[in-house]
Amino acid sequence: MIIGGSASQSLAAEVAKELNDKLCSVETKKFPDGERYFRIKDEIPEDEKVIIIQSTGYPQDENMMELFFILDTLSDMNIDDITVVSPYLGYSRQERRFKEVECISAKAISKLLQSMGVKHLISINLHEESICDLYDIPVDNLSAMPSIAEYIRENHEDKKPIILAPDKGAENFAKQIAEILNTDYDYLEKVRLSPEKVKTKTKSISVENRSVIIVDDIISTGGTIVNAINILKENGAKMVDVVCVHPVLVNDAILKISAAGANTIHGTNTLKSEVAHISVATTIADHLKNLENQ
Amino acid sequence: MIIGGSASQSLAAEVAKELNDKLCSVETKKFPDGERYFRIKDEIPEDEKVIIIQSTGYPQDENMMELFFILDTLSDMNIDDITVVSPYLGYSRQERRFKEVECISAKAISKLLQSMGVKHLISINLHEESICDLYDIPVDNLSAMPSIAEYIRENHEDKKPIILAPDKGAENFAKQIAEILNTDYDYLEKVRLSPEKVKTKTKSISVENRSVIIVDDIISTGGTIVNAINILKENGAKMVDVVCVHPVLVNDAILKISAAGANTIHGTNTLKSEVAHISVATTIADHLKNLENQ
Repeated sequence: MIIGGSASQSLAAEVAKELNDKLCSVETKKFPDGERYFRIKDEIPEDEKVIIIQSTGYPQDENMMELFFILDTLSDMNIDDITVVSPYLGYSRQERRFKEVECISAKAISKLLQSMGVKHLISINLHEESICDLYDIPVDNLSAMPSIAEYIRENHEDKKPIILAPDKGAENFAKQIAEILNTDYDYLEKVRLSPEKVKTKTKSISVENRSVIIVDDIISTGGTIVNAINILKENGAKMVDVVCVHPVLVNDAILKISAAGANTIHGTNTLKSEVAHISVATTIADHLKNLENQ
Repeated sequence: MIIGGSASQSLAAEVAKELNDKLCSVETKKFPDGERYFRIKDEIPEDEKVIIIQSTGYPQDENMMELFFILDTLSDMNIDDITVVSPYLGYSRQERRFKEVECISAKAISKLLQSMGVKHLISINLHEESICDLYDIPVDNLSAMPSIAEYIRENHEDKKPIILAPDKGAENFAKQIAEILNTDYDYLEKVRLSPEKVKTKTKSISVENRSVIIVDDIISTGGTIVNAINILKENGAKMVDVVCVHPVLVNDAILKISAAGANTIHGTNTLKSEVAHISVATTIADHLKNLENQ
Protein backbone atom coordinates (compact mmCIF):
# COMPACT_ATOMS: atom_id res chain seq x y z
CA MET A 1 0.00 0.00 0.00
CA ILE A 2 1.34 3.42 -1.03
CA ILE A 3 0.27 6.62 0.77
CA GLY A 4 1.00 9.88 -1.01
CA GLY A 5 1.49 13.07 0.97
CA SER A 6 0.34 16.45 -0.33
CA ALA A 7 3.83 17.29 -1.59
CA SER A 8 4.31 14.16 -3.74
CA GLN A 9 0.91 13.22 -5.11
CA SER A 10 1.87 12.49 -8.75
CA LEU A 11 5.08 10.79 -7.74
CA ALA A 12 3.19 8.50 -5.34
CA ALA A 13 0.70 7.66 -8.10
CA GLU A 14 3.52 6.87 -10.54
CA VAL A 15 5.35 4.66 -8.06
CA ALA A 16 2.13 2.80 -7.21
CA LYS A 17 1.54 2.18 -10.92
CA GLU A 18 5.08 0.91 -11.52
CA LEU A 19 4.81 -1.43 -8.54
CA ASN A 20 1.28 -2.43 -9.41
CA ASP A 21 0.49 -1.47 -5.81
CA LYS A 22 -2.60 0.14 -4.33
CA LEU A 23 -2.57 3.92 -3.84
CA CYS A 24 -4.36 4.63 -0.58
CA SER A 25 -7.38 6.93 -0.61
CA VAL A 26 -6.79 9.82 1.79
CA GLU A 27 -8.36 13.16 2.63
CA THR A 28 -6.21 16.19 3.37
CA LYS A 29 -7.25 19.78 3.82
CA LYS A 30 -6.52 22.95 5.73
CA PHE A 31 -8.96 24.60 8.10
CA PRO A 32 -9.51 28.38 7.80
CA ASP A 33 -7.15 28.95 10.76
CA GLY A 34 -4.30 27.20 8.92
CA GLU A 35 -4.44 23.84 10.71
CA ARG A 36 -4.06 20.74 8.65
CA TYR A 37 -6.43 17.75 8.54
CA PHE A 38 -5.51 14.23 7.51
CA ARG A 39 -7.66 11.12 7.15
CA ILE A 40 -7.11 7.62 5.76
CA LYS A 41 -10.24 6.46 3.93
CA ASP A 42 -9.15 2.91 3.05
CA GLU A 43 -8.99 -0.02 5.36
CA ILE A 44 -5.43 -1.24 5.83
CA PRO A 45 -4.71 -4.65 7.42
CA GLU A 46 -2.40 -4.44 10.45
CA ASP A 47 0.30 -6.58 8.84
CA GLU A 48 0.37 -4.53 5.61
CA LYS A 49 3.66 -3.00 4.50
CA VAL A 50 2.95 0.72 4.04
CA ILE A 51 5.10 3.10 2.02
CA ILE A 52 4.56 6.82 2.54
CA ILE A 53 5.86 9.08 -0.22
CA GLN A 54 6.21 12.69 0.87
CA SER A 55 8.81 15.23 -0.14
CA THR A 56 9.73 17.53 2.71
CA GLY A 57 10.96 20.47 0.66
CA TYR A 58 9.38 23.92 0.80
CA PRO A 59 7.14 24.50 2.72
CA GLN A 60 9.29 22.18 4.83
CA ASP A 61 7.51 22.63 8.14
CA GLU A 62 4.06 21.99 6.69
CA ASN A 63 5.16 18.94 4.73
CA MET A 64 7.04 17.56 7.71
CA MET A 65 4.06 18.03 10.04
CA GLU A 66 1.78 16.32 7.54
CA LEU A 67 4.20 13.40 7.46
CA PHE A 68 4.05 13.18 11.27
CA PHE A 69 0.26 13.18 11.12
CA ILE A 70 0.24 10.37 8.54
CA LEU A 71 2.59 8.37 10.76
CA ASP A 72 0.48 8.94 13.87
CA THR A 73 -2.68 7.84 12.05
CA LEU A 74 -0.98 4.62 10.89
CA SER A 75 0.22 4.02 14.44
CA ASP A 76 -3.42 4.29 15.61
CA MET A 77 -4.29 1.63 13.02
CA ASN A 78 -1.63 -0.63 14.59
CA ILE A 79 0.42 -0.59 11.42
CA ASP A 80 4.05 -1.18 12.18
CA ASP A 81 5.84 -1.87 8.91
CA ILE A 82 6.26 1.71 7.68
CA THR A 83 8.75 2.92 5.09
CA VAL A 84 9.01 6.64 4.38
CA VAL A 85 10.23 7.79 0.99
CA SER A 86 11.13 11.46 1.26
CA PRO A 87 12.77 12.11 -2.11
CA TYR A 88 13.93 15.52 -0.90
CA LEU A 89 14.59 15.36 2.83
CA GLY A 90 14.12 18.78 4.40
CA TYR A 91 16.56 20.12 6.97
CA SER A 92 19.41 18.02 5.57
CA ARG A 93 21.73 20.96 5.18
CA GLN A 94 22.45 21.41 8.88
CA GLU A 95 23.76 17.97 9.72
CA ARG A 96 26.55 19.13 12.00
CA ARG A 97 27.28 21.98 14.40
CA PHE A 98 29.34 24.92 13.15
CA LYS A 99 28.80 27.17 16.20
CA GLU A 100 27.88 26.55 19.86
CA VAL A 101 25.03 25.67 20.44
CA GLU A 102 23.28 25.37 17.11
CA CYS A 103 20.37 23.07 16.54
CA ILE A 104 21.47 20.17 14.34
CA SER A 105 18.16 20.20 12.58
CA ALA A 106 18.86 17.06 10.49
CA LYS A 107 19.34 15.19 13.78
CA ALA A 108 16.15 16.67 15.27
CA ILE A 109 14.27 15.43 12.19
CA SER A 110 15.72 11.94 12.64
CA LYS A 111 14.52 11.91 16.26
CA LEU A 112 11.04 13.12 15.28
CA LEU A 113 10.63 10.66 12.41
CA GLN A 114 11.85 7.70 14.42
CA SER A 115 9.71 8.54 17.43
CA MET A 116 6.69 8.64 15.12
CA GLY A 117 7.38 5.07 14.00
CA VAL A 118 9.32 5.12 10.72
CA LYS A 119 11.11 1.78 10.26
CA HIS A 120 12.97 2.49 7.02
CA LEU A 121 13.82 5.78 5.31
CA ILE A 122 14.55 6.24 1.62
CA SER A 123 15.75 9.50 0.09
CA ILE A 124 17.45 10.69 -3.06
CA ASN A 125 20.85 12.40 -3.27
CA LEU A 126 20.96 13.45 0.37
CA HIS A 127 22.98 16.59 0.93
CA GLU A 128 25.54 14.57 2.91
CA GLU A 129 25.89 10.80 3.10
CA SER A 130 26.61 11.29 6.82
CA ILE A 131 22.91 12.03 7.39
CA CYS A 132 22.35 8.27 7.29
CA ASP A 133 24.45 8.00 10.48
CA LEU A 134 21.99 10.20 12.35
CA TYR A 135 19.43 7.37 12.19
CA ASP A 136 19.14 4.08 14.05
CA ILE A 137 16.96 2.67 11.26
CA PRO A 138 18.16 1.79 7.73
CA VAL A 139 18.45 4.83 5.47
CA ASP A 140 18.88 4.30 1.72
CA ASN A 141 20.35 7.19 -0.21
CA LEU A 142 19.46 6.65 -3.88
CA SER A 143 21.02 8.39 -6.86
CA ALA A 144 18.87 10.16 -9.45
CA MET A 145 21.77 10.26 -11.92
CA PRO A 146 20.55 7.24 -13.96
CA SER A 147 17.12 8.93 -14.39
CA ILE A 148 18.82 12.16 -15.38
CA ALA A 149 21.07 10.33 -17.88
CA GLU A 150 18.03 8.66 -19.45
CA TYR A 151 16.30 12.00 -19.73
CA ILE A 152 19.31 13.54 -21.47
CA ARG A 153 19.59 10.57 -23.82
CA GLU A 154 15.95 10.91 -24.85
CA ASN A 155 15.74 14.69 -25.06
CA HIS A 156 19.13 16.21 -25.85
CA GLU A 157 19.92 16.84 -29.50
CA ASP A 158 23.71 16.49 -29.12
CA LYS A 159 24.73 12.86 -28.60
CA LYS A 160 28.19 13.77 -27.25
CA PRO A 161 27.73 16.67 -24.85
CA ILE A 162 30.27 17.39 -22.14
CA ILE A 163 28.73 16.63 -18.75
CA LEU A 164 30.17 19.30 -16.47
CA ALA A 165 30.19 19.61 -12.70
CA PRO A 166 30.33 23.24 -11.49
CA ASP A 167 32.90 22.21 -8.85
CA LYS A 168 34.96 19.24 -7.72
CA GLY A 169 32.27 18.29 -5.18
CA ALA A 170 29.85 17.48 -7.98
CA GLU A 171 32.39 15.65 -10.18
CA ASN A 172 31.02 12.24 -9.28
CA PHE A 173 27.55 13.20 -10.50
CA ALA A 174 28.98 14.24 -13.88
CA LYS A 175 31.00 11.03 -14.04
CA GLN A 176 27.94 8.82 -13.35
CA ILE A 177 25.93 10.46 -16.11
CA ALA A 178 28.80 10.57 -18.64
CA GLU A 179 29.48 6.86 -18.15
CA ILE A 180 25.86 5.96 -18.86
CA LEU A 181 25.79 8.23 -21.94
CA ASN A 182 29.30 7.20 -23.03
CA THR A 183 30.45 10.79 -23.32
CA ASP A 184 33.01 13.16 -21.70
CA TYR A 185 32.83 14.76 -18.29
CA ASP A 186 34.80 17.39 -16.46
CA TYR A 187 34.54 19.89 -13.64
CA LEU A 188 35.38 23.53 -13.10
CA GLU A 189 38.31 24.41 -10.87
CA LYS A 190 39.90 27.61 -9.67
CA VAL A 191 43.51 28.11 -10.78
CA ARG A 192 45.71 30.76 -9.17
CA LEU A 193 47.54 32.56 -12.00
CA SER A 194 49.33 35.05 -9.73
CA PRO A 195 49.03 36.11 -6.07
CA GLU A 196 46.18 38.45 -7.11
CA LYS A 197 44.65 36.59 -10.00
CA VAL A 198 42.38 33.52 -9.87
CA LYS A 199 40.85 31.97 -12.96
CA THR A 200 38.10 29.36 -13.05
CA LYS A 201 38.40 26.87 -15.91
CA THR A 202 37.54 23.34 -16.91
CA LYS A 203 39.99 20.85 -15.42
CA SER A 204 40.85 18.85 -18.58
CA ILE A 205 38.62 19.41 -21.60
CA SER A 206 38.15 22.40 -23.89
CA VAL A 207 34.51 23.41 -24.21
CA GLU A 208 35.10 25.40 -27.39
CA ASN A 209 32.30 24.77 -29.86
CA ARG A 210 30.98 21.94 -27.66
CA SER A 211 27.58 21.42 -26.19
CA VAL A 212 27.80 21.36 -22.37
CA ILE A 213 25.34 20.10 -19.75
CA ILE A 214 25.99 21.41 -16.25
CA VAL A 215 24.90 18.94 -13.57
CA ASP A 216 24.53 19.40 -9.84
CA ASP A 217 22.69 17.63 -7.02
CA ILE A 218 20.88 20.76 -5.83
CA ILE A 219 20.43 24.30 -7.15
CA SER A 220 19.31 26.84 -4.55
CA THR A 221 20.03 30.47 -5.35
CA GLY A 222 21.66 29.56 -8.67
CA GLY A 223 24.77 31.68 -8.08
CA THR A 224 27.21 28.82 -8.74
CA ILE A 225 25.41 27.87 -11.95
CA VAL A 226 25.34 31.46 -13.26
CA ASN A 227 29.11 31.70 -12.71
CA ALA A 228 29.64 28.40 -14.47
CA ILE A 229 27.54 29.49 -17.47
CA ASN A 230 29.50 32.74 -17.76
CA ILE A 231 32.82 30.87 -17.80
CA LEU A 232 31.60 28.31 -20.35
CA LYS A 233 30.31 31.06 -22.65
CA GLU A 234 33.59 32.97 -22.38
CA ASN A 235 35.38 29.79 -23.37
CA GLY A 236 33.33 29.32 -26.50
CA ALA A 237 30.78 26.68 -25.47
CA LYS A 238 28.23 26.25 -28.27
CA MET A 239 25.25 25.57 -26.00
CA VAL A 240 24.82 25.22 -22.23
CA ASP A 241 22.00 23.25 -20.59
CA VAL A 242 21.46 22.88 -16.85
CA VAL A 243 20.18 19.85 -14.99
CA CYS A 244 19.94 19.01 -11.31
CA VAL A 245 18.36 16.55 -8.93
CA HIS A 246 16.70 18.92 -6.45
CA PRO A 247 15.34 22.08 -8.13
CA VAL A 248 15.08 24.23 -4.97
CA LEU A 249 15.58 27.33 -7.14
CA VAL A 250 14.68 30.01 -4.59
CA ASN A 251 13.25 33.39 -5.60
CA ASP A 252 14.23 34.34 -9.15
CA ALA A 253 16.84 31.59 -9.66
CA ILE A 254 15.24 30.24 -12.87
CA LEU A 255 15.21 33.73 -14.40
CA LYS A 256 18.82 34.39 -13.34
CA ILE A 257 20.09 31.11 -14.81
CA SER A 258 18.08 31.60 -18.00
CA ALA A 259 19.25 35.19 -18.40
CA ALA A 260 22.85 34.01 -18.02
CA GLY A 261 22.30 31.98 -21.18
CA ALA A 262 21.13 28.50 -20.17
CA ASN A 263 19.35 26.83 -23.08
CA THR A 264 17.17 24.72 -20.74
CA ILE A 265 16.90 24.03 -17.00
CA HIS A 266 15.60 20.68 -15.77
CA GLY A 267 15.28 19.09 -12.36
CA THR A 268 13.64 15.98 -10.95
CA ASN A 269 10.27 15.73 -9.24
CA THR A 270 11.81 15.25 -5.79
CA LEU A 271 10.42 18.78 -5.30
CA LYS A 272 7.54 20.75 -6.74
CA SER A 273 9.02 23.13 -9.29
CA GLU A 274 8.27 24.64 -12.67
CA VAL A 275 11.23 22.67 -14.03
CA ALA A 276 10.61 19.31 -12.31
CA HIS A 277 10.35 17.42 -15.59
CA ILE A 278 12.42 14.35 -14.76
CA SER A 279 10.64 11.67 -12.75
CA VAL A 280 12.40 9.64 -10.09
CA ALA A 281 9.48 7.18 -9.92
CA THR A 282 11.43 4.38 -11.60
CA THR A 283 14.44 4.92 -9.32
CA ILE A 284 12.17 4.59 -6.29
CA ALA A 285 10.06 1.73 -7.66
CA ASP A 286 13.10 -0.33 -8.71
CA HIS A 287 14.65 0.12 -5.28
CA LEU A 288 11.44 -0.92 -3.53
CA LYS A 289 11.20 -4.00 -5.78
CA ASN A 290 14.77 -4.95 -4.90
CA LEU A 291 14.04 -4.58 -1.19
CA GLU A 292 10.98 -6.80 -1.62
CA ASN A 293 13.03 -9.51 -3.33
CA GLN A 294 15.81 -9.54 -0.75
CA MET B 1 16.06 30.49 32.51
CA ILE B 2 13.36 31.54 30.04
CA ILE B 3 13.67 30.81 26.31
CA GLY B 4 11.36 32.74 24.01
CA GLY B 5 10.33 31.28 20.67
CA SER B 6 9.76 33.45 17.60
CA ALA B 7 5.99 33.48 18.17
CA SER B 8 6.09 34.76 21.78
CA GLN B 9 9.05 37.09 22.07
CA SER B 10 7.45 39.95 24.02
CA LEU B 11 5.48 37.59 26.22
CA ALA B 12 8.66 35.68 27.11
CA ALA B 13 10.41 38.96 27.95
CA GLU B 14 7.50 40.07 30.14
CA VAL B 15 7.35 36.76 32.01
CA ALA B 16 11.13 36.82 32.57
CA LYS B 17 10.82 40.34 33.98
CA GLU B 18 7.97 39.40 36.31
CA LEU B 19 9.90 36.37 37.57
CA ASN B 20 13.16 38.27 37.73
CA ASP B 21 14.52 35.42 35.63
CA LYS B 22 17.12 35.45 32.86
CA LEU B 23 15.85 35.62 29.25
CA CYS B 24 18.11 33.37 27.18
CA SER B 25 19.97 34.87 24.25
CA VAL B 26 19.09 32.96 21.09
CA GLU B 27 19.52 33.31 17.33
CA THR B 28 16.73 32.36 14.96
CA LYS B 29 16.50 32.92 11.24
CA LYS B 30 15.25 31.45 8.01
CA PHE B 31 17.49 30.44 5.14
CA PRO B 32 16.54 31.53 1.60
CA ASP B 33 15.07 28.06 0.92
CA GLY B 34 12.65 28.43 3.86
CA GLU B 35 14.48 26.26 6.40
CA ARG B 36 14.67 27.51 9.92
CA TYR B 37 17.82 27.97 12.01
CA PHE B 38 17.99 27.99 15.80
CA ARG B 39 20.91 28.59 18.15
CA ILE B 40 21.27 29.06 21.90
CA LYS B 41 23.94 31.66 22.59
CA ASP B 42 24.01 31.48 26.39
CA GLU B 43 25.59 28.81 28.50
CA ILE B 44 22.99 26.90 30.50
CA PRO B 45 24.03 24.61 33.37
CA GLU B 46 22.76 21.04 32.99
CA ASP B 47 20.67 21.19 36.17
CA GLU B 48 18.96 24.45 35.22
CA LYS B 49 15.17 24.55 35.05
CA VAL B 50 14.34 25.84 31.56
CA ILE B 51 10.99 27.32 30.55
CA ILE B 52 10.28 27.67 26.83
CA ILE B 53 7.53 30.13 25.90
CA GLN B 54 6.23 29.60 22.38
CA SER B 55 2.72 30.03 21.06
CA THR B 56 1.89 27.46 18.41
CA GLY B 57 -0.83 29.39 16.64
CA TYR B 58 -0.62 30.42 12.98
CA PRO B 59 1.67 29.55 11.27
CA GLN B 60 1.18 26.45 13.44
CA ASP B 61 3.56 24.13 11.60
CA GLU B 62 6.43 26.61 11.62
CA ASN B 63 6.00 27.49 15.27
CA MET B 64 5.68 23.84 16.23
CA MET B 65 8.81 22.85 14.31
CA GLU B 66 10.75 25.69 15.94
CA LEU B 67 9.61 24.39 19.32
CA PHE B 68 10.90 20.90 18.42
CA PHE B 69 14.23 22.41 17.39
CA ILE B 70 14.53 24.32 20.67
CA LEU B 71 13.78 21.10 22.57
CA ASP B 72 16.35 19.10 20.59
CA THR B 73 19.02 21.72 21.20
CA LEU B 74 18.34 21.63 24.95
CA SER B 75 18.51 17.85 24.86
CA ASP B 76 21.98 18.13 23.26
CA MET B 77 22.97 20.38 26.17
CA ASN B 78 21.86 17.60 28.56
CA ILE B 79 19.15 19.78 29.99
CA ASP B 80 16.36 17.67 31.34
CA ASP B 81 14.08 19.92 33.40
CA ILE B 82 12.07 21.49 30.58
CA THR B 83 8.68 23.17 30.88
CA VAL B 84 6.91 24.35 27.75
CA VAL B 85 4.44 27.22 27.99
CA SER B 86 2.41 27.26 24.79
CA PRO B 87 -0.23 29.88 25.61
CA TYR B 88 -2.15 28.91 22.46
CA LEU B 89 -1.62 25.23 21.74
CA GLY B 90 -1.96 24.54 18.03
CA TYR B 91 -3.93 21.52 16.79
CA SER B 92 -6.10 21.44 19.92
CA ARG B 93 -9.33 21.46 17.96
CA GLN B 94 -9.07 17.87 16.73
CA GLU B 95 -8.75 16.05 20.03
CA ARG B 96 -11.01 13.14 19.12
CA ARG B 97 -12.01 11.16 16.04
CA PHE B 98 -15.25 12.06 14.28
CA LYS B 99 -14.71 9.83 11.22
CA GLU B 100 -12.67 6.70 10.52
CA VAL B 101 -9.64 7.06 10.34
CA GLU B 102 -8.91 10.69 11.06
CA CYS B 103 -5.65 11.88 12.48
CA ILE B 104 -6.23 13.01 16.07
CA SER B 105 -3.78 15.82 15.60
CA ALA B 106 -3.88 16.94 19.25
CA LYS B 107 -2.68 13.45 20.20
CA ALA B 108 0.03 13.48 17.51
CA ILE B 109 1.28 16.78 18.97
CA SER B 110 1.36 15.25 22.46
CA LYS B 111 3.47 12.36 21.15
CA LEU B 112 5.85 14.70 19.33
CA LEU B 113 6.29 17.08 22.28
CA GLN B 114 6.83 14.30 24.77
CA SER B 115 9.28 12.45 22.56
CA MET B 116 11.28 15.68 22.26
CA GLY B 117 11.65 15.85 26.04
CA VAL B 118 8.97 18.16 27.45
CA LYS B 119 8.45 17.39 31.15
CA HIS B 120 5.62 19.80 31.92
CA LEU B 121 3.21 21.63 29.63
CA ILE B 122 1.34 24.82 30.45
CA SER B 123 -1.31 26.36 28.21
CA ILE B 124 -4.15 28.83 28.49
CA ASN B 125 -7.85 28.08 27.94
CA LEU B 126 -7.31 24.88 26.00
CA HIS B 127 -10.06 24.18 23.52
CA GLU B 128 -11.05 21.09 25.54
CA GLU B 129 -9.98 20.14 29.07
CA SER B 130 -9.72 16.55 27.77
CA ILE B 131 -6.55 17.50 25.89
CA CYS B 132 -4.72 17.16 29.21
CA ASP B 133 -5.58 13.44 29.16
CA LEU B 134 -3.65 12.98 25.92
CA TYR B 135 -0.41 13.58 27.84
CA ASP B 136 1.55 11.40 30.27
CA ILE B 137 3.21 14.52 31.70
CA PRO B 138 1.47 17.17 33.85
CA VAL B 139 -0.53 19.66 31.77
CA ASP B 140 -1.77 22.85 33.43
CA ASN B 141 -4.67 24.58 31.72
CA LEU B 142 -4.71 28.17 33.00
CA SER B 143 -7.56 30.64 32.66
CA ALA B 144 -7.02 34.09 31.16
CA MET B 145 -10.33 35.33 32.56
CA PRO B 146 -8.74 37.12 35.57
CA SER B 147 -6.42 39.03 33.18
CA ILE B 148 -9.37 39.89 30.96
CA ALA B 149 -11.42 41.06 33.98
CA GLU B 150 -8.56 43.31 35.09
CA TYR B 151 -8.30 44.75 31.61
CA ILE B 152 -12.02 45.51 31.53
CA ARG B 153 -11.88 47.10 34.99
CA GLU B 154 -9.05 49.41 33.94
CA ASN B 155 -10.28 50.30 30.47
CA HIS B 156 -14.05 50.07 30.24
CA GLU B 157 -16.01 53.24 30.91
CA ASP B 158 -19.13 51.47 32.20
CA LYS B 159 -18.62 50.02 35.67
CA LYS B 160 -21.63 47.68 35.42
CA PRO B 161 -21.58 46.13 31.95
CA ILE B 162 -23.34 42.84 31.26
CA ILE B 163 -20.76 40.16 30.59
CA LEU B 164 -22.34 38.00 27.91
CA ALA B 165 -21.41 34.58 26.56
CA PRO B 166 -22.50 34.03 22.94
CA ASP B 167 -23.65 30.50 23.86
CA LYS B 168 -24.10 28.21 26.85
CA GLY B 169 -20.64 26.71 26.27
CA ALA B 170 -18.98 30.01 27.11
CA GLU B 171 -21.22 30.81 30.11
CA ASN B 172 -18.55 29.89 32.62
CA PHE B 173 -16.12 32.43 31.11
CA ALA B 174 -18.72 35.19 31.49
CA LYS B 175 -19.42 34.06 35.05
CA GLN B 176 -15.71 34.16 36.04
CA ILE B 177 -15.29 37.70 34.73
CA ALA B 178 -18.59 39.00 36.14
CA GLU B 179 -17.74 37.71 39.61
CA ILE B 180 -14.38 39.49 39.60
CA LEU B 181 -16.01 42.72 38.38
CA ASN B 182 -19.07 42.29 40.60
CA THR B 183 -21.47 42.74 37.71
CA ASP B 184 -24.13 40.74 35.80
CA TYR B 185 -23.59 37.94 33.32
CA ASP B 186 -25.78 35.99 30.97
CA TYR B 187 -25.64 33.91 27.80
CA LEU B 188 -27.53 33.73 24.53
CA GLU B 189 -29.84 30.79 23.92
CA LYS B 190 -32.03 29.64 21.07
CA VAL B 191 -35.74 29.47 21.92
CA ARG B 192 -38.19 27.65 19.64
CA LEU B 193 -41.27 29.90 19.27
CA SER B 194 -43.13 27.58 16.87
CA PRO B 195 -42.15 24.52 14.77
CA GLU B 196 -40.74 26.89 12.12
CA LYS B 197 -39.53 29.79 14.20
CA VAL B 198 -36.41 29.95 16.37
CA LYS B 199 -35.35 33.07 18.24
CA THR B 200 -32.02 33.71 19.91
CA LYS B 201 -32.19 35.81 23.07
CA THR B 202 -30.48 36.43 26.37
CA LYS B 203 -31.33 33.77 28.94
CA SER B 204 -32.27 36.03 31.90
CA ILE B 205 -31.33 39.69 31.61
CA SER B 206 -32.65 42.46 29.38
CA VAL B 207 -29.85 44.23 27.52
CA GLU B 208 -31.98 47.28 26.71
CA ASN B 209 -29.99 50.44 27.21
CA ARG B 210 -27.19 48.42 28.83
CA SER B 211 -23.54 48.20 27.94
CA VAL B 212 -22.63 44.61 27.00
CA ILE B 213 -19.27 42.89 26.73
CA ILE B 214 -19.31 39.64 24.72
CA VAL B 215 -16.71 37.18 25.95
CA ASP B 216 -15.48 33.94 24.38
CA ASP B 217 -12.41 31.72 24.68
CA ILE B 218 -11.59 31.84 20.98
CA ILE B 219 -12.82 33.79 17.98
CA SER B 220 -12.00 32.25 14.60
CA THR B 221 -14.17 33.34 11.69
CA GLY B 222 -16.23 35.65 13.91
CA GLY B 223 -19.59 34.35 12.67
CA THR B 224 -20.92 33.59 16.17
CA ILE B 225 -19.90 37.02 17.42
CA VAL B 226 -21.48 38.85 14.48
CA ASN B 227 -24.77 37.03 15.16
CA ALA B 228 -24.56 37.90 18.84
CA ILE B 229 -23.95 41.60 18.10
CA ASN B 230 -26.94 41.71 15.74
CA ILE B 231 -29.22 40.23 18.40
CA LEU B 232 -27.94 42.57 21.12
CA LYS B 233 -28.40 45.62 18.89
CA GLU B 234 -31.94 44.51 17.97
CA ASN B 235 -32.68 44.23 21.67
CA GLY B 236 -31.55 47.77 22.38
CA ALA B 237 -28.07 47.29 23.82
CA LYS B 238 -26.42 50.70 24.28
CA MET B 239 -22.89 49.57 23.43
CA VAL B 240 -21.33 46.21 22.57
CA ASP B 241 -17.66 45.38 23.14
CA VAL B 242 -15.98 42.08 22.28
CA VAL B 243 -13.24 40.33 24.18
CA CYS B 244 -11.69 36.89 23.86
CA VAL B 245 -8.72 34.86 25.00
CA HIS B 246 -7.39 33.59 21.66
CA PRO B 247 -7.79 36.15 18.85
CA VAL B 248 -7.43 33.71 15.93
CA LEU B 249 -9.60 36.04 13.83
CA VAL B 250 -9.03 34.49 10.40
CA ASN B 251 -9.23 36.50 7.18
CA ASP B 252 -11.44 39.59 7.58
CA ALA B 253 -12.96 38.64 10.96
CA ILE B 254 -11.95 41.93 12.65
CA LEU B 255 -13.61 43.94 9.88
CA LYS B 256 -16.74 41.79 9.99
CA ILE B 257 -17.13 42.11 13.76
CA SER B 258 -16.41 45.85 13.63
CA ALA B 259 -18.86 46.41 10.78
CA ALA B 260 -21.52 44.55 12.77
CA GLY B 261 -21.20 47.29 15.35
CA ALA B 262 -18.63 46.20 17.96
CA ASN B 263 -17.29 49.23 19.80
CA THR B 264 -13.92 47.53 20.47
CA ILE B 265 -12.38 44.06 19.98
CA HIS B 266 -9.68 42.84 22.34
CA GLY B 267 -7.86 39.55 22.77
CA THR B 268 -4.89 38.32 24.76
CA ASN B 269 -1.31 37.93 23.55
CA THR B 270 -1.54 34.13 23.48
CA LEU B 271 -1.44 34.77 19.72
CA LYS B 272 0.01 37.46 17.49
CA SER B 273 -2.88 39.67 16.43
CA GLU B 274 -3.69 43.31 15.78
CA VAL B 275 -6.02 43.15 18.79
CA ALA B 276 -3.77 41.22 21.22
CA HIS B 277 -3.79 44.01 23.80
CA ILE B 278 -4.31 41.98 26.98
CA SER B 279 -1.20 40.35 28.38
CA VAL B 280 -1.28 36.92 29.99
CA ALA B 281 2.26 37.42 31.36
CA THR B 282 1.04 37.78 34.96
CA THR B 283 -1.17 34.69 34.68
CA ILE B 284 1.81 32.66 33.50
CA ALA B 285 4.34 34.20 35.90
CA ASP B 286 2.09 33.72 38.94
CA HIS B 287 1.51 30.08 38.02
CA LEU B 288 5.24 29.46 37.57
CA LYS B 289 5.90 31.11 40.97
CA ASN B 290 3.33 28.84 42.59
CA LEU B 291 4.90 25.76 41.03
CA GLU B 292 8.31 26.90 42.30
CA ASN B 293 6.98 27.28 45.86
CA GLN B 294 5.29 23.88 45.94
